[in-house]
Amino acid sequence: MSKVIFQIEGGAPVVMEANAGDNLLELARRANVAIDAPCSGNGSCGKCRVKLLEGELEGGKTRHISEAEYAEGWRLSCACTVSGDVTVLVPDIASAYQSRMKTADLSTGKEVAIFEALQADLRQSGISFDNTFRAVELILDAPTLDDTMPDNERISWALREKLGVSHVEEPYEVMVKLAHTLRENSFHITAKGELQGDTFYLMDVTSPEDRDLIGCAIDIGTTTVSMVLVDLNSGKILAKGSSGNGQIRYGADVINRIIEQGKPGGRKKLQDAIVKETLTPIIANLCKSAGLSARSILRLCVGANTTMNHLFVGVDAESVRMEPYIPSFFSWDGLKAGDLHLPAHPLAKVLVAPNIGSYVGGDITAGAFASLIWDKDEFSLFIDLGTNGEIVFGNRDFLMSCACSAGPAFEGGDISCGMRATDGAIEACVIDKATMEPNIRVVGEPGQKPVGICGSGIIDIISELFRCGIINAKGLFVREGARVQRDHHGMGRYVIAFPAESATEREISINEVDIDNFIRAKGAIFSAVDILLQSVDMDVEAIDKVYVAGGIGSGINMKNAVNIGMFPDVDLEKFTYIGNSSLSGAYAMVLSDEANAKVEEVAKNMTYMELSTHPGYMDAFVAACFLPHTDAARFPSSKQEG
Amino acid sequence: MSKVIFQIEGGAPVVMEANAGDNLLELARRANVAIDAPCSGNGSCGKCRVKLLEGELEGGKTRHISEAEYAEGWRLSCACTVSGDVTVLVPDIASAYQSRMKTADLSTGKEVAIFEALQADLRQSGISFDNTFRAVELILDAPTLDDTMPDNERISWALREKLGVSHVEEPYEVMVKLAHTLRENSFHITAKGELQGDTFYLMDVTSPEDRDLIGCAIDIGTTTVSMVLVDLNSGKILAKGSSGNGQIRYGADVINRIIEQGKPGGRKKLQDAIVKETLTPIIANLCKSAGLSARSILRLCVGANTTMNHLFVGVDAESVRMEPYIPSFFSWDGLKAGDLHLPAHPLAKVLVAPNIGSYVGGDITAGAFASLIWDKDEFSLFIDLGTNGEIVFGNRDFLMSCACSAGPAFEGGDISCGMRATDGAIEACVIDKATMEPNIRVVGEPGQKPVGICGSGIIDIISELFRCGIINAKGLFVREGARVQRDHHGMGRYVIAFPAESATEREISINEVDIDNFIRAKGAIFSAVDILLQSVDMDVEAIDKVYVAGGIGSGINMKNAVNIGMFPDVDLEKFTYIGNSSLSGAYAMVLSDEANAKVEEVAKNMTYMELSTHPGYMDAFVAACFLPHTDAARFPSSKQEG
Repeated sequence: MSKVIFQIEGGAPVVMEANAGDNLLELARRANVAIDAPCSGNGSCGKCRVKLLEGELEGGKTRHISEAEYAEGWRLSCACTVSGDVTVLVPDIASAYQSRMKTADLSTGKEVAIFEALQADLRQSGISFDNTFRAVELILDAPTLDDTMPDNERISWALREKLGVSHVEEPYEVMVKLAHTLRENSFHITAKGELQGDTFYLMDVTSPEDRDLIGCAIDIGTTTVSMVLVDLNSGKILAKGSSGNGQIRYGADVINRIIEQGKPGGRKKLQDAIVKETLTPIIANLCKSAGLSARSILRLCVGANTTMNHLFVGVDAESVRMEPYIPSFFSWDGLKAGDLHLPAHPLAKVLVAPNIGSYVGGDITAGAFASLIWDKDEFSLFIDLGTNGEIVFGNRDFLMSCACSAGPAFEGGDISCGMRATDGAIEACVIDKATMEPNIRVVGEPGQKPVGICGSGIIDIISELFRCGIINAKGLFVREGARVQRDHHGMGRYVIAFPAESATEREISINEVDIDNFIRAKGAIFSAVDILLQSVDMDVEAIDKVYVAGGIGSGINMKNAVNIGMFPDVDLEKFTYIGNSSLSGAYAMVLSDEANAKVEEVAKNMTYMELSTHPGYMDAFVAACFLPHTDAARFPSSKQEG
Repeated sequence: MSKVIFQIEGGAPVVMEANAGDNLLELARRANVAIDAPCSGNGSCGKCRVKLLEGELEGGKTRHISEAEYAEGWRLSCACTVSGDVTVLVPDIASAYQSRMKTADLSTGKEVAIFEALQADLRQSGISFDNTFRAVELILDAPTLDDTMPDNERISWALREKLGVSHVEEPYEVMVKLAHTLRENSFHITAKGELQGDTFYLMDVTSPEDRDLIGCAIDIGTTTVSMVLVDLNSGKILAKGSSGNGQIRYGADVINRIIEQGKPGGRKKLQDAIVKETLTPIIANLCKSAGLSARSILRLCVGANTTMNHLFVGVDAESVRMEPYIPSFFSWDGLKAGDLHLPAHPLAKVLVAPNIGSYVGGDITAGAFASLIWDKDEFSLFIDLGTNGEIVFGNRDFLMSCACSAGPAFEGGDISCGMRATDGAIEACVIDKATMEPNIRVVGEPGQKPVGICGSGIIDIISELFRCGIINAKGLFVREGARVQRDHHGMGRYVIAFPAESATEREISINEVDIDNFIRAKGAIFSAVDILLQSVDMDVEAIDKVYVAGGIGSGINMKNAVNIGMFPDVDLEKFTYIGNSSLSGAYAMVLSDEANAKVEEVAKNMTYMELSTHPGYMDAFVAACFLPHTDAARFPSSKQEG
């Protein structure tokens, strides 16, 4: 037996006994050590790198490791076997994901346009943007020997007068600072709180200048977290940002995370990963960039899938995964920021957009709300492309929904050169059929060299490779050329950027495993649409509108997505990309009490269909795992150019 | 300059620079080091002992320090001066007070009789003992693939059915344990919470066997804290206990504690002293003795003076002390056990009996409520003998109240051999006029030797010394004998127990300083009664009833108390000792919603009179600082036997 020590970056070492010949990645998995391996260990993605610190390993030298890197000790863990005692350094996936934290530049208006448009549309649909939060300026009489009213009665009396309420609730958090705040500001203060019927729920007392009433809308995705801070009075977006979900170290998908949270101390670990390690730094960052105190955040709203909701709240998610798939809650309005130690006012309510099933959560109810499909006569298809893909179909009369496991491919995961749609991402691509040379568009300033490929870029590349006859319907390379290369196993890849053309001086390419992963992801989406339409006895002709949501990026080319059989083959004019609709829905909910009520109503009227137990789903999925489909007649617009 | 190090027992050392000849006690006070010195440094009480660890001190050997103790290093700090570098050990006052923690023996029924009698009396006065706490047994259907209601809806639905409410509030504390509790108990559980109108506030879910709904009534006195745990269903007393108030280390009276809490970090220190160091161990002890989980405590009620209330809640008390004497609150219903980290259910409401002025607090409103004077036509005088003395006078039509600073004498403080009315306390005494020999009654089992003197014992001894002509009207010794001794200053004392007669083998005596302290305390009480009666244009003849409350002990001899001019000279049959009425009132409030409402009403109808600014008070006080009074005609029953 040999001893293998996994020295996790920024963590405690994990020691495992191993036999000579044991695969290092397999061993890491048994030891519960998270190594980023989207290709599941077939050597294609090149992401499962570890660094040899002591001892030796067999193998581990692949095309993904340069000579220089190999000399430094870098090895691909899936390609190594144990041959004796060894210590390896494991990069921390979560910190890598977190380091992708990004604060949006609001100066151009581009980042906020989608929210402004949504607000206008919702108002059109009769949703008012009112809420009950108030910042009330009070100029009180200072007490004297003849006016000995205690502080709390003094402020309560003034608020009753000013707001016309009969009762003022005074929580502990206000009471402990009241005497000081009143005297420091010579009895001229701001009282912040929430008006509900006949009662004013006092939340804070501050200096007269501080009148901030801030709302925080959050989309907690399995892979990515996004957030906006809004002014609860004006609805204005004050800051916007995103980051990776720190839970990634406990698994790429919800199932692995549920398993992790079920282990001793797991719930706390998973909750800390999202609350302390992910949300807390983003909120701090956004508050700083907007010049706000986190204590001014008086309401939060979260759009997240059912598992993310449970892990965020710290509620056991085991029963989400196990038959009969019963979550602790769909809807719940008892959560406060202080319960989770979120950096916000401790009494701030945390609204969770309602889940409707174990795998259709608040991100979808919030998103479907933001798509406005519930207010239309025409039949709409809503497709959210996340780590899970969720589909909703219907109109003002009915809404059907289902979920499928697509994996992280749409956000650039599971793809060897994949990345999110940020600076350096190849977001669009056209290939010259004759020369096979690519013409790419890269996110960022003009002249930005490519770093990797985001979801919309992958769709384009695969579609173009297929159109140009470079790959066949199974996704295998069938033409040769300068840009089509093969490794020593014969696995083909298409080089979009040679090292000299890329920002990182490493090749950017897409290989057969990447394409296979992506075909499975798009197959999962299309077959879910297929089954959902079947279930209501309709077919693609019935679709009036298709709303595509998710982090895939606004660069998505619908024609190419249809071309590869990802979306149903309908008139391209029917497609609209609506971005992160979960965040948009949360934005509306945090600002508008009517939006809140409407999301609850949309959720109540939405029927959930469990695909995993559906008899036809597996066949439909297998049939969809081709370009464009085994039944090509279903995609008349898709053809390979002769 | 010399360096003096105060090594505080269980605390951090404090270092002071000193000049040769500096008095050690004075130095300690400047250094903010708490040394127990009730006689204020005149050498009479013998309590300000410190132990020399290194170096030397001048003096410090008095009659209070035996040869053996002196050899061990014990010195009386008030009698020492600095002569060089020195390190002394300072005993921790607070732990001494806390070590007096006592859990009552409920087996005889004696300890609970007063609460049972109160409940019967209150019912007679139309106060029902109902509250809204419920423990509901639920036998739920386990979920199946066809019955996929989430956990929170399942329990909410069942509670709505069973209780006929339309809404169930589900707090975070319940949500995080719901999935586990349901499954561990096969969906057969107890749901605990509070019913309010159309809403059930769910507070806990437990195993079906656990149906405990517990209330906790607390009297927070400046010197002593008392507590009972009650069954919220049956009203039964489940445990009773008391302890010293750990804040004592920050001053014996409220003024010193307010000054302390105003220093940096002071609020937290004072709050910790009462919450963490005093209440938490008593609750833990009582829960243990009653076999209860502290989490079953779902409501707490506190009777305390205005300063104690502010320090307990952690709210700045500075403005209680400074003109115009404005507390942060009189009445306040927003406090939860979790806000203070009290060992109870975190959502348990903490009801604070309403204060009506800076120096008439919730202990008095709760106590006056428990005395039932608000329900009578006859005029009653309510006297609470605590560190502060508070007086209420009136009937169902009006209630007047005031407060005076009596000091801790009634609880055995400020008296050299004083102690609380626990085992070993001399609680009663008769002196033979001819022989001057005492005949004492000691608290405890037969044969218990005396340890010290409690409040009722001091009243008896002073009254008897006066009756027998051993002391004069000024409290000075005027007869000599075996039991009357004098120190080298000529200060007289009466020895109640010679070393051989006492349990501690130390003399138990009362000296002229003790007597003077006590005369000031009783003078403060009587003059307050005097001024209060004057203010309503009445005199002692108008008094129909006198209710005496406080920790002085049920052994109090009213005849002797009148004899020394402590209470007005009215028919002895009019006196009733009602014990700790603040605790009794809190007991009623924790059990009964109607009692709660009535205490609020009593408080609203009570008029507060500020004595400190009253022009006649100082004269009345000076006149009352004699035995029985400068105007002896006001005490016709009091006479020295010729």
